[in-house]
Amino acid sequence: MPAAGSAFAQLHQYLHHTRLLGSISSALYYDQNTVMPAAGAAWRGDQLALLAGQLHERQSSAEFGDLLAAAEAELGAELGADAPPERRRNLELLRLELERQRSLDPQLVQALAKAQSRGNAIWQDARARNDFSAFAPALLELIALRRQQASQLVSAEPMARSPWEILAQPFEPDISKTRLEQLFAPLKAELPVLLEQVAAMGNPQPAADLPEALQEQLCAELLDSWGYDPQRCQRARSAHPFSCTLGPQDFRITTRVVPGQPLSAFLATAHEWGHSLYEQGLPRGDDHFFPWPLGEATSMGVHESQSLFWECRVARSQAFAERWHPRFQAGLGADPWGGARGFWRSLNPPAPGLIRVEADELSYCLHIVLRFELELALLEQDMPVEDLPQQWNQRMQELLGIQPQTDSQGCLQDIHWAEGLFGYFPSYALGHLISAQLAEAMETDLGGPGAIAGAIAAGQEERLRSWLAMGVWPLGRAVNGEELVRQVSGRPLSAEPFLQYLKFKLELLQAPA
Amino acid sequence: MPAAGSAFAQLHQYLHHTRLLGSISSALYYDQNTVMPAAGAAWRGDQLALLAGQLHERQSSAEFGDLLAAAEAELGAELGADAPPERRRNLELLRLELERQRSLDPQLVQALAKAQSRGNAIWQDARARNDFSAFAPALLELIALRRQQASQLVSAEPMARSPWEILAQPFEPDISKTRLEQLFAPLKAELPVLLEQVAAMGNPQPAADLPEALQEQLCAELLDSWGYDPQRCQRARSAHPFSCTLGPQDFRITTRVVPGQPLSAFLATAHEWGHSLYEQGLPRGDDHFFPWPLGEATSMGVHESQSLFWECRVARSQAFAERWHPRFQAGLGADPWGGARGFWRSLNPPAPGLIRVEADELSYCLHIVLRFELELALLEQDMPVEDLPQQWNQRMQELLGIQPQTDSQGCLQDIHWAEGLFGYFPSYALGHLISAQLAEAMETDLGGPGAIAGAIAAGQEERLRSWLAMGVWPLGRAVNGEELVRQVSGRPLSAEPFLQYLKFKLELLQAPA
Repeated sequence: MPAAGSAFAQLHQYLHHTRLLGSISSALYYDQNTVMPAAGAAWRGDQLALLAGQLHERQSSAEFGDLLAAAEAELGAELGADAPPERRRNLELLRLELERQRSLDPQLVQALAKAQSRGNAIWQDARARNDFSAFAPALLELIALRRQQASQLVSAEPMARSPWEILAQPFEPDISKTRLEQLFAPLKAELPVLLEQVAAMGNPQPAADLPEALQEQLCAELLDSWGYDPQRCQRARSAHPFSCTLGPQDFRITTRVVPGQPLSAFLATAHEWGHSLYEQGLPRGDDHFFPWPLGEATSMGVHESQSLFWECRVARSQAFAERWHPRFQAGLGADPWGGARGFWRSLNPPAPGLIRVEADELSYCLHIVLRFELELALLEQDMPVEDLPQQWNQRMQELLGIQPQTDSQGCLQDIHWAEGLFGYFPSYALGHLISAQLAEAMETDLGGPGAIAGAIAAGQEERLRSWLAMGVWPLGRAVNGEELVRQVSGRPLSAEPFLQYLKFKLELLQAPA
Repeated sequence: MPAAGSAFAQLHQYLHHTRLLGSISSALYYDQNTVMPAAGAAWRGDQLALLAGQLHERQSSAEFGDLLAAAEAELGAELGADAPPERRRNLELLRLELERQRSLDPQLVQALAKAQSRGNAIWQDARARNDFSAFAPALLELIALRRQQASQLVSAEPMARSPWEILAQPFEPDISKTRLEQLFAPLKAELPVLLEQVAAMGNPQPAADLPEALQEQLCAELLDSWGYDPQRCQRARSAHPFSCTLGPQDFRITTRVVPGQPLSAFLATAHEWGHSLYEQGLPRGDDHFFPWPLGEATSMGVHESQSLFWECRVARSQAFAERWHPRFQAGLGADPWGGARGFWRSLNPPAPGLIRVEADELSYCLHIVLRFELELALLEQDMPVEDLPQQWNQRMQELLGIQPQTDSQGCLQDIHWAEGLFGYFPSYALGHLISAQLAEAMETDLGGPGAIAGAIAAGQEERLRSWLAMGVWPLGRAVNGEELVRQVSGRPLSAEPFLQYLKFKLELLQAPA
């Protein structure tokens, strides 16, 4: 531990304070989405804006710059080549973030905040009325502001990057368009073929709804068996499931019960718990981590890989369905699934529909490819905003073989663009790819093909958890997402493991009972 | 509304910011006591300390002083005799608070905060081990620091006040020892006599416990019938019931289910809802109120009078018991109370015991008198701290006719002194007195003797609520507690209405069925 009074220790103190403020925001956000009465919204908005202002000020202040410079000088002068690599990495990441903050014109930051809030409101209304033309001017303004932001950020980038790439950095550090095109090409080529195969399969009978109390109980049992500790975690209900971290020992997840979707809350619980496990496993142990960059998640793609692993690889697996079917059956006092295999098929309904958030594992990534390509067209290829609906529909036809009847079910369906969030969507697809490749490596380590299914069948999911806890979570931001995959799996990230996993699963699902 | 750039408007902006910070603290406190997992405590403590520091800084800053001085100058120069009285009063109250903040040595503030936290920890342990001598040095230090605080505050006081009186000002503005002695004298004289009468009554049979779900449902029905609006309020569970305000349109209350005390949650809900109704009714309407002093509760005594009104005058009344007994009976599917009268007696069990928080309406104020007199002895009459246990026990004997066997059940029972909180206890007793005198005035306005019981019998509690909403809650800090009572009831506060109410109720309770 560095001497009290050292530049490093002073910087630590500064970051601790910043992190406290950030986590107060998270606490207010959690309350807002789980308990706050509706009429509290305006005041809560003022509270969050106040904290956001304080946070921004601390992250770009001259004091922060001075403390960081002093810590950098200390690293060079006192420690030189003997410097702990963690300390060097922390300072590099902080420097990059500070330079990004500093390169932005405060007036642009304000203009963006306003345009985001306005864009969201206009979008809500336009989507409800299926009126893309009402939304188009707001989108145009957001694109212009984001391009301006990217051009201001250029000076802070350590290498040449396109505007879209610059905007994607906060979500997926070091990502490039070329790399994504490379990763997505096999998905574009193979997923439509798989989708055609699935179209031949019948849909499973929609199962009877499960009573709310039973869903609650099954979610609680799932969490208990997956290492949930009520001393460190709490769960609640919210309109949309989420996971958040309120402090180094304070984790919250939320779910919702959806009428008519009896397995929704259960699978959302698995998903959010995956996010939370990653957060809980991030390095906290010594002075180089919490509240330093190294104590943070390295990318949204890796974060998503953790939630998808527990949701898709574990909770939607056949082995899991076989172990849990008796509990569902006993709880309900009936078996509307007609056995474990039917239950498993209910956990994996084919759903190649129009809506991304309702899409199945097969079609999901195609939704992302479509959005990725349209973002590039809008931000870098001068595609007119007015062309978006037509372009959207045409690409949906090409990729998924279906077309929306309304823009509300098409290019107006997501909130992201309404807030000018470009560069975020690919992380969702990367999550699937990373999860599959890490699972492959896990399987090898745990004994070869079938090892994951074997652990699940034996109710030994803690073996999977331990593997992630040893090799993945403690990396924090020591490496970026792709480096993490290469380090853990020994190979560069590719779409192959994901496609293989899908084909294998599909074969099993299609096999006669 | 004052002009946008006026000194008054600028001060408003400053206070708004301060109030946002304060309400963020309240939100964290609420979360901490209702949902936060135990392991989150240390980080939450850091968050709250950070906010407390920011709040203290804003409440004593040079900027605040300048803004206030400018607003005062504006009031004198621009408006003179035409100044809205609300504005004058707001500035007077802010000036008084600022001068108090400024008169304190920051080192003393820090020393006090540490001593409070240490005192609390030592007290927890000493109480658990029944070891007063372990607690005595901490108490001695807290008394010394509080005396020092009082001597620093003297310069800010608008009139001559004793150390105890100075410390009591934040809870009960303008209160004096003489006035309290005057108010408490009839209680000391008459309550012991009433207690002797009660001793002759038998205790009601302890009723069977009520299932938790039924208690929940009855609490929800109570709140529904008393104006609870889920758009503005939320309720939750916590270890100790409380009520808090998170924003101008965001109110929370909590209760707990106590095994073996079937009516506890129900009565606590009535009590906390009374607090919340007062908060919800405080003036918010225009620029002179929220977030100004005039938008705040005027004293802890008045606050307590509002909770006690709904708990004791309404929920423990015979008319209420008669209306609600069928619901309790139907919910339970049995009548362990043997009719409405038995139910009413269960709502009013005589409990002249050793513990203040478990005391009944008859003996409660005697617990307060004892503490008030001991605080004076400790702070102003040089009573040695070592004498406290013996003095406590002797006075318990004199006032209540009983003596604790251990200090844990005696002078170690309350948390207040462990945190150096002197001057707070009398507000609890004033709450009973104020509630009774306001209820008397209400009854006159609503049609004379029996009008409150009549409204309750008819299920028209909204008539009681409207009366308070018209005449009491909107006063905010325009008047202090005693002025409020005089204004509303036309008479100075006295113990008479309370004693009359008790005697009347006691007669009914003792009457043959």
